[in-house]
Amino acid sequence: MEIKEYIEKNKERFFEELFELLRIPSDSSKPEHKPDMYRCAEKIAEYLRAAGVDKAEICETAGNPVVFAEKKIDPKAPTILVYGHYDVQPAEPLELWKTNPYEPVIKDGAIWARGANDDKGQSFMHIKAFEYLIKEGKLRQNVKFMIEGEEEISSPSLAPWMKANKKKLACDSILISDTTQLSEKFPSMCTGMRGLSYLEVTVKGQAIDVHSGHYGGAIYNPVNALCDMISSLIDKEGHVTVPGFYDDVAELSRKDRKLLGQMPFDAEEYLGCIGGGALKGEKGYTTREHTAIRPCLDVNGIWGGFTAPGSKTIIPSEAHAKISMRLVPYQDSAKISKLFAKHFKKITPKGLTSEVMIHHGGESFVTPLDSKEYRAAFKAMKEVYGMEPIPYRGGGSITVIAEAQKMLKATPALMGFGLDRDAIHSPNESYLLLQFFRGIECITKFYQYY
Amino acid sequence: MEIKEYIEKNKERFFEELFELLRIPSDSSKPEHKPDMYRCAEKIAEYLRAAGVDKAEICETAGNPVVFAEKKIDPKAPTILVYGHYDVQPAEPLELWKTNPYEPVIKDGAIWARGANDDKGQSFMHIKAFEYLIKEGKLRQNVKFMIEGEEEISSPSLAPWMKANKKKLACDSILISDTTQLSEKFPSMCTGMRGLSYLEVTVKGQAIDVHSGHYGGAIYNPVNALCDMISSLIDKEGHVTVPGFYDDVAELSRKDRKLLGQMPFDAEEYLGCIGGGALKGEKGYTTREHTAIRPCLDVNGIWGGFTAPGSKTIIPSEAHAKISMRLVPYQDSAKISKLFAKHFKKITPKGLTSEVMIHHGGESFVTPLDSKEYRAAFKAMKEVYGMEPIPYRGGGSITVIAEAQKMLKATPALMGFGLDRDAIHSPNESYLLLQFFRGIECITKFYQYY
Repeated sequence: MEIKEYIEKNKERFFEELFELLRIPSDSSKPEHKPDMYRCAEKIAEYLRAAGVDKAEICETAGNPVVFAEKKIDPKAPTILVYGHYDVQPAEPLELWKTNPYEPVIKDGAIWARGANDDKGQSFMHIKAFEYLIKEGKLRQNVKFMIEGEEEISSPSLAPWMKANKKKLACDSILISDTTQLSEKFPSMCTGMRGLSYLEVTVKGQAIDVHSGHYGGAIYNPVNALCDMISSLIDKEGHVTVPGFYDDVAELSRKDRKLLGQMPFDAEEYLGCIGGGALKGEKGYTTREHTAIRPCLDVNGIWGGFTAPGSKTIIPSEAHAKISMRLVPYQDSAKISKLFAKHFKKITPKGLTSEVMIHHGGESFVTPLDSKEYRAAFKAMKEVYGMEPIPYRGGGSITVIAEAQKMLKATPALMGFGLDRDAIHSPNESYLLLQFFRGIECITKFYQYY
Repeated sequence: MEIKEYIEKNKERFFEELFELLRIPSDSSKPEHKPDMYRCAEKIAEYLRAAGVDKAEICETAGNPVVFAEKKIDPKAPTILVYGHYDVQPAEPLELWKTNPYEPVIKDGAIWARGANDDKGQSFMHIKAFEYLIKEGKLRQNVKFMIEGEEEISSPSLAPWMKANKKKLACDSILISDTTQLSEKFPSMCTGMRGLSYLEVTVKGQAIDVHSGHYGGAIYNPVNALCDMISSLIDKEGHVTVPGFYDDVAELSRKDRKLLGQMPFDAEEYLGCIGGGALKGEKGYTTREHTAIRPCLDVNGIWGGFTAPGSKTIIPSEAHAKISMRLVPYQDSAKISKLFAKHFKKITPKGLTSEVMIHHGGESFVTPLDSKEYRAAFKAMKEVYGMEPIPYRGGGSITVIAEAQKMLKATPALMGFGLDRDAIHSPNESYLLLQFFRGIECITKFYQYY
C-alpha cells in the first residue's frame, strides 16, 4: 500500500492517538507538571511499541525522562536516530485561547492545541511513518528514537544523559522534525538554527518602595534605571552593545547569503501572520537574515513596582526583566552569558545594585548541504511537493542538536513541517492537517531515498 | 490642666481609639474596600461627637463619604476648618511587612500600621487637641472638620462636593496635618506642595506573543520599545523631555531659594532613611530643591511579557507602565497630562501603537509666610520644640488644598509631624509617639496663639 493510501485509511486513528498525547499538559516550565511528563513519556513509548520497535524504555535523567526506542534491521545497515520532544511551552496567557489548550479540536483544516505542532505533532509523524514502513516491510535502516521532555527549557538534562549513553545512541544520521517551513507554498528545509542565552536581571535601589512625592526627582528610580539600561543594550543601528558580543560571529560569503536568500519576502504577509507590529533589525541585513544569520537580544518579560489596577504613588525599590539573546555560529552561549553579566554590572548606575541570573542556554549549529541526509530529505520533499525545497536557517534554537552532532559524530537533517501561522509558543497553537500528512509522507520517502 | 498632663493621663485611651481606626483597611485604591470606608468614616464621626462637636455627619459624595463636623463657639469668632483623610495607601507588598499592616503595635517608641501616620494618626491628633480644648473650656474659635476618604487617589470626589457645600464649609483658615518634618531634630513647616499627573501607558506591537527565536532581531519588541520610550523621557541632565513641560514652572528668586535651603542636608542620612539607592536629579538644583521646587517624572510600575518563575522564549505583544509626574507652581495638571499624552504618541515607534490613560491629577500650592495662620503655627511649634521651625516645600501632593484655597478664599497652614523614617506609602509604616504627642500639643497651642 502506498503511504498516501495508508494515511487515508488510518487518519482517524492517528488523530485519536495524537489527541491523547495533546491532552497531557506536559509543560516543562512548571515543576508541578512532573507527573504529566511521565504520563506523556509512557504514552509515547506505548505508541512506539505498537508501531513495531524491538523495545521502548523510559530513561531517567536528572530532570524529565527520555523515551528511547530501537528497531534493529541489519547490523551492517546504517542507523538513523530520530529526535523529538514531548514537552511543551506554557499555555499562558490562557484567556487568549479560543479553545482549551489541552483539549485538541480539528477546525479550519488544522489541529488546535498546545503542542499540536511543537513538538508532539511533529514527533508523532515519525512514529506513524515508522509504523507504515514496518507494516509494509519497507524499512532498510536501523532506527532509534530519542524523545526528550526538556526541549522548551533548553534540554539541561539531555546532554549529560547522552554522554552517559553514547553507545546506546550510536548512529550515522539524526533526523528531526521540530522546525517550520518558510511557507506552505514553498517546501523548505532548515539548515541551521541559532543558539540561546537566557538570563534574568534585577536592579535594586533603595531598600523599600518610597513615596514618589517625597523622593521623586531626587533619587534614581530603579524602574527608570532598568529602562535606561535595557534601552542602552541595542544601539540606533540595531547592534547589541555588549562588548565582545560579535567577536565570534561567522560572517557569511555573498554566495551563501544569496543561497539562503532565495525565498521571496513580503513584509506585509510576514507581519500579517502575527497581526502587525513593526520590522526592526540590524542595519545592513535583510529581515530574513536578521533571524537566520545574525544574533539578537530581546526582553521576554519585565516587571516592577505597582502593577495592580488603580494607582499607587511609589518609587519602586527594584525592577526585574527576563532577557534572552539568540546566537549564531560561532558564538559560545556560556561566554556570551558571561559577557552580558559583566556588561550589565558595568552599566548599573552608581549607588544602585544589580543581579544577573543565568537561566539556561545552548549552542547554534549548521547542517551541510552536500550530505546524504540532506540529499535524501531533498528528494523526498521534491517528490511530495513537486518542487525543490529551499534551504534556510531557522531563528529558533534546538540546543541539543549541536551537542548531538559533536557527541555522536552524526549528521543531522531537519525536516520540519510547521508554518509561521501555527503560533507555536503563543496562544491558539495549531498544525495544518495538510502539513501533518505531507510530513508523514516525506519522512517515509526520506528512508526510501536514504 | 496643661495639655502635657492631659496627654499623659489619657494616652492609653488615645492609643485604643486610634488602633480601632487603624484596624479598618480603608484602602481607597480598591473598590472592594468600600464598606471599610464607611466603617472608618462612622468611627471618626463617633470620636468627633465624643470630643464635643455640635454635630458630625457622614456626607455622601460621588465616591467615598466625607466626615463633616462643626463646633460653633461665637458667630463673631473666626472659623478654622481642619482637613484630614481617613483613607490609606495599599498595604502591598504584604510580604515585606514585619507586622500585620492592619493590626497596629507599639514598638521602639512608635506605632506600626498602615495609616499610623498618613493620615489617620495625624488626623486623630486634631480630634484629641479639640477634645482637650473643649474639656478645658479653652476653645475661642469656631471649628469645622472635613475628613475625606479619597486623598490617596487624588480626591476625585471632594472638590465637586465642596463646590456643592461652599456655605457649610465657609471658614477663614484651613489647618492640615498630613505632611512631614525635615527631621525630628528640626521643627519645620511645609509651605507648599507639588501637583500630580498620574497616567498609565500601553505599547502594543504584533497581536500575539510570538516565538523569540522565529522573530527575534527582525521585529520591534514592544517591551524594548517601552524601555526606549521611557528612557527618552528624561535626558542626561535630568530634564523631562516632554515639550512644554517647563513652560509654566515658577523660577524662584535667590532669596527664596536661600530661605527654603536653610535645612542642613546630609546625603548619607537622607539615603540612609530609605536604605540606600542613588541620588539623581535635575542639573543645577540641590537634592532638597529637586523635590521642593522642581517637577519630575517617575515610573510607578511596569509590566509586560512572561513574569512568572522560569523562562519563556517570547516576544511579548504589549507592555505597560504607570507613570506619574510631580508638578510645581504654575504647571497645570490637566495641561501637563495632555502634553505627555501627545508626546508619548509622537515617540511611539512607527508600526507600534500606544495608549495613554489619564488616572488622576491635582494642582500644586504654596502658603504665604506672613499670614496669621503661619505665625500662630510658628509660635506653637517654637514653644513646644524650644526652637524656631524652618519653612520648606513638600514633594508630595495634597491636591485638595489648592482647590480649597481657591474655593473658600481661606488660608491654609500645614502643621505636619511625620518624619521620613515613617515609611508612609511603604511597608512597615510607623509614627513616632514623640511626634504624635508633640503634634497634639502644637495643635492646641495653635488655637491659643491664633
